[in-house]
Amino acid sequence: MTMPRRSDPVLSGILATDQYQLTMAQLYWKQGWADRRAQFDYFFRRYPDYGDHQAGYCVSAGLSWLLEWMEGARFTRDDLEILASQRTVTGRPRFAPEFIAWLERHGDFSGLELRAIPEGRVVHPNAPIVSVTGPLALAQILETHLLNRLNYPTLIATKASRAKEAARGGTVLEFGLRRGPESGSHAGGYGALIGGAHFTSNTALSAAVGLDPKGTHAHSMVQAFLALGLGELEAFRRFAELYPDECVLLVDTVDVLTSGVPNAIEVFRELKAKGHKPGGVRIDSGDLAYLAIQSAVLLDEAGFDDVPIVLSSDLDELVIWQILSQIDAEAPRYGVDPQKLAHRLVYGVGTRLITSHGDAALGGVYKLVAMEDENGEMVPAIKVSEDVAKVPIPGVKRVFRVYDRRGLATADLVALADEDPAAMDTLQLHHPHLGLQRILTGDDVSEIEELMVTVFSGGRRLDGSPDLEELRRRRQVDLERLDPGVRRLVNPHRYHVSVTKAMHQMQQGLLAEALDGAEI
Amino acid sequence: MTMPRRSDPVLSGILATDQYQLTMAQLYWKQGWADRRAQFDYFFRRYPDYGDHQAGYCVSAGLSWLLEWMEGARFTRDDLEILASQRTVTGRPRFAPEFIAWLERHGDFSGLELRAIPEGRVVHPNAPIVSVTGPLALAQILETHLLNRLNYPTLIATKASRAKEAARGGTVLEFGLRRGPESGSHAGGYGALIGGAHFTSNTALSAAVGLDPKGTHAHSMVQAFLALGLGELEAFRRFAELYPDECVLLVDTVDVLTSGVPNAIEVFRELKAKGHKPGGVRIDSGDLAYLAIQSAVLLDEAGFDDVPIVLSSDLDELVIWQILSQIDAEAPRYGVDPQKLAHRLVYGVGTRLITSHGDAALGGVYKLVAMEDENGEMVPAIKVSEDVAKVPIPGVKRVFRVYDRRGLATADLVALADEDPAAMDTLQLHHPHLGLQRILTGDDVSEIEELMVTVFSGGRRLDGSPDLEELRRRRQVDLERLDPGVRRLVNPHRYHVSVTKAMHQMQQGLLAEALDGAEI
Repeated sequence: MTMPRRSDPVLSGILATDQYQLTMAQLYWKQGWADRRAQFDYFFRRYPDYGDHQAGYCVSAGLSWLLEWMEGARFTRDDLEILASQRTVTGRPRFAPEFIAWLERHGDFSGLELRAIPEGRVVHPNAPIVSVTGPLALAQILETHLLNRLNYPTLIATKASRAKEAARGGTVLEFGLRRGPESGSHAGGYGALIGGAHFTSNTALSAAVGLDPKGTHAHSMVQAFLALGLGELEAFRRFAELYPDECVLLVDTVDVLTSGVPNAIEVFRELKAKGHKPGGVRIDSGDLAYLAIQSAVLLDEAGFDDVPIVLSSDLDELVIWQILSQIDAEAPRYGVDPQKLAHRLVYGVGTRLITSHGDAALGGVYKLVAMEDENGEMVPAIKVSEDVAKVPIPGVKRVFRVYDRRGLATADLVALADEDPAAMDTLQLHHPHLGLQRILTGDDVSEIEELMVTVFSGGRRLDGSPDLEELRRRRQVDLERLDPGVRRLVNPHRYHVSVTKAMHQMQQGLLAEALDGAEI
Repeated sequence: MTMPRRSDPVLSGILATDQYQLTMAQLYWKQGWADRRAQFDYFFRRYPDYGDHQAGYCVSAGLSWLLEWMEGARFTRDDLEILASQRTVTGRPRFAPEFIAWLERHGDFSGLELRAIPEGRVVHPNAPIVSVTGPLALAQILETHLLNRLNYPTLIATKASRAKEAARGGTVLEFGLRRGPESGSHAGGYGALIGGAHFTSNTALSAAVGLDPKGTHAHSMVQAFLALGLGELEAFRRFAELYPDECVLLVDTVDVLTSGVPNAIEVFRELKAKGHKPGGVRIDSGDLAYLAIQSAVLLDEAGFDDVPIVLSSDLDELVIWQILSQIDAEAPRYGVDPQKLAHRLVYGVGTRLITSHGDAALGGVYKLVAMEDENGEMVPAIKVSEDVAKVPIPGVKRVFRVYDRRGLATADLVALADEDPAAMDTLQLHHPHLGLQRILTGDDVSEIEELMVTVFSGGRRLDGSPDLEELRRRRQVDLERLDPGVRRLVNPHRYHVSVTKAMHQMQQGLLAEALDGAEI
């Protein structure tokens, strides 16, 4: 057996896919279909469900890094040698030399075109987020890469957006690297920054995206001073000397209220006397709401009523919500204004963000929806599953977002490629798997926006290589145009994703045909 | 803002750490402590708890890839420039040029020594899995890297081991790449292979570790044939022609029992006539136990009673257990032998394995436990948290595994560096946070094994660069020496992790001292 190496280049290349994509690609090649045009749609079927609470929307993330990778991806000589060396159980080569030669000539993504709802935007189930069109064999090989690079960042962007919503304007810091999934943590962290985290503690990621990394110090720093017979106060003092203008002190190594905060206040006084503004205190254990209130009491008494209080320790949107609710109820009893306290809170969100606590996977899928026939026509493809809710919306399509009279998004609408909802007098919205849902007339609609744009063609990304600021702007604009009920953390309103009447009829016809065929 | 790039080398370098490790390192440098010897221990505090079921042991994974990375890691010129360019809120450089120069000279891990319980072995809470000793500043910087590279693979290896236990000898395939955490999925997949998955569908990972990748085909292949007016049977036939010796057919694109399995049987007959052995059928939706039984009925009738049946679709250890229980109860009613059916089952385990469904993070921590004082003595460090169960075992230490008269592991025992439990007449086992737990005499003990070995020193890994086979062998040997109650999927027996009497006394003394100090 080989000695496995993490740095093996094969792990970042085009073979980082499911084996069956390659065996299917060879079959398509053998059938003479490798170059035949096909369309695959990427979409998810349901929002993340965290158990006690559920997402009412998702934030799309991961597209830029997928496109960046696609630009450079191709079958290298090493990759082809790996495939040529694979043997079946009887010892024969699994892949024909002619197929390997075909991959050598055609094995990149320059023939694919990707249309997508832009990264950072709010997205919903069943409507495609990305449509991939191009040679069947390569569109098939792309499947695993695309799912691997979009599912996870979208999941984390969604979770981060919820944490930001819960924080009522408080700052959210991404702290997940140490508990995150190895190098995937960078994609998770980037998703978090797109979705709502203001900063990350990850120095490398911060450099890559152009942000200032955030951090305080660890318990180990205070422990080191303690082990050498020096106290917590001495540790704080030395830290403050070195970082006088961003001195955030972790106050729970010994005891928050009898040691940490009093020592921090002493150091803050010294900083203030020298003209510096203290950075804050951080509490990483215990009853965070109670300790935040009591710390505020002590800080306020000492004249530091605007010093931030950073909270960390297994936070997520629900815990943040709970902390703020407890502060609302409990703070006045101690003479602390809950609004003012909420304003100075900063949340370090780690494990539960980077792992999307409660629902650790987005079930995004990549389904064949159309294929070119012998006459060069794209024919819709359908999968008749046992569960009608799992049947993808077939065929080539366009996706629109319909805004109501208030200017809020009221439905995403999937139409046939030649339909233009803006030109229709009334819109019939059909549930993608059930019957008629709603009819909208011109009066009900303030705007109809087409969502998908071409983001990859001719081997090049065409998404404009957006920076983080742009992705966040898109998210913010979309969030502000969502109904507050859809943004709710628990039991959100169900946003409508619909198909047009013509799409509905096409879908029903295909289903009937397929089920009929199945009985032969 | 910069355009973020996934391929930015900074993301795989030494700056992929939490910012506070670097600010603390500068403080240590400023204090003149950067080179002072410190010891940090890596351990976890509790087994994964999946909600309805819980782990009774973990399988250590990730160490080889951590050590491989540590050998090459250093502060590059680009890394140092990034640090030099960081500014505080007042616009001053955050890192002093002298500190950057120090990092340039000393910024690699050649000064660190790592002792560890070898990768692949069964591990338990509170006892260190890795101890890192060396210059304080670099041992501190390593923290995030080590946690990021050990927590996640260990979590997934543990989950995979449970899936393998549930499968009662059936084959487990790792299918998680598409739902896994971006590039972290390779580390998860490798963890799964160490922990119990026999193969993976990930072609690149298979190549890197020297396994044959496994896969069948997707629904999209059958759909492509259907879209072109060709049937499921034609799709199966073409696939069988190309892969006659490993023809596993996905039978649920149309309908498992009325279409998929009958068509598969027809193709298997044709294969058999040509002297080939059919590879199997795969069922990816519906009531998997019921469909497996009914498929077995059809396959048995047709004379294919040894053809494997591959199951996939949201499997994990509990679902596999449930499927086998249902088969035990239901199969006889249809004339199918449950044992025989269980033997032909293969499990494709994807999403729930790669995300450790139910508990998506291992809370492994890295704690300062000792530090060199001015006299060159290593003094124990302690953190007095509000929760006594969170106080790490302090000081330099050795870890032993004690086997009972049956030859089964009965406790892991943490001792002082100069203690040798093998030389003791009786062993006093103290709970690491509470009082006395058990006393073992010589008669109770068949073997005492020291667990930690040196795996990194002088900048080089010394773990013998084990291959996958060796790691799996270690896991298997350890599992066979675990009490069956500890291996149980639900409510496992609690394995004892203990400290010696001397360690207990040292711990109590330090605690008292620290708590006393806190009141000053």
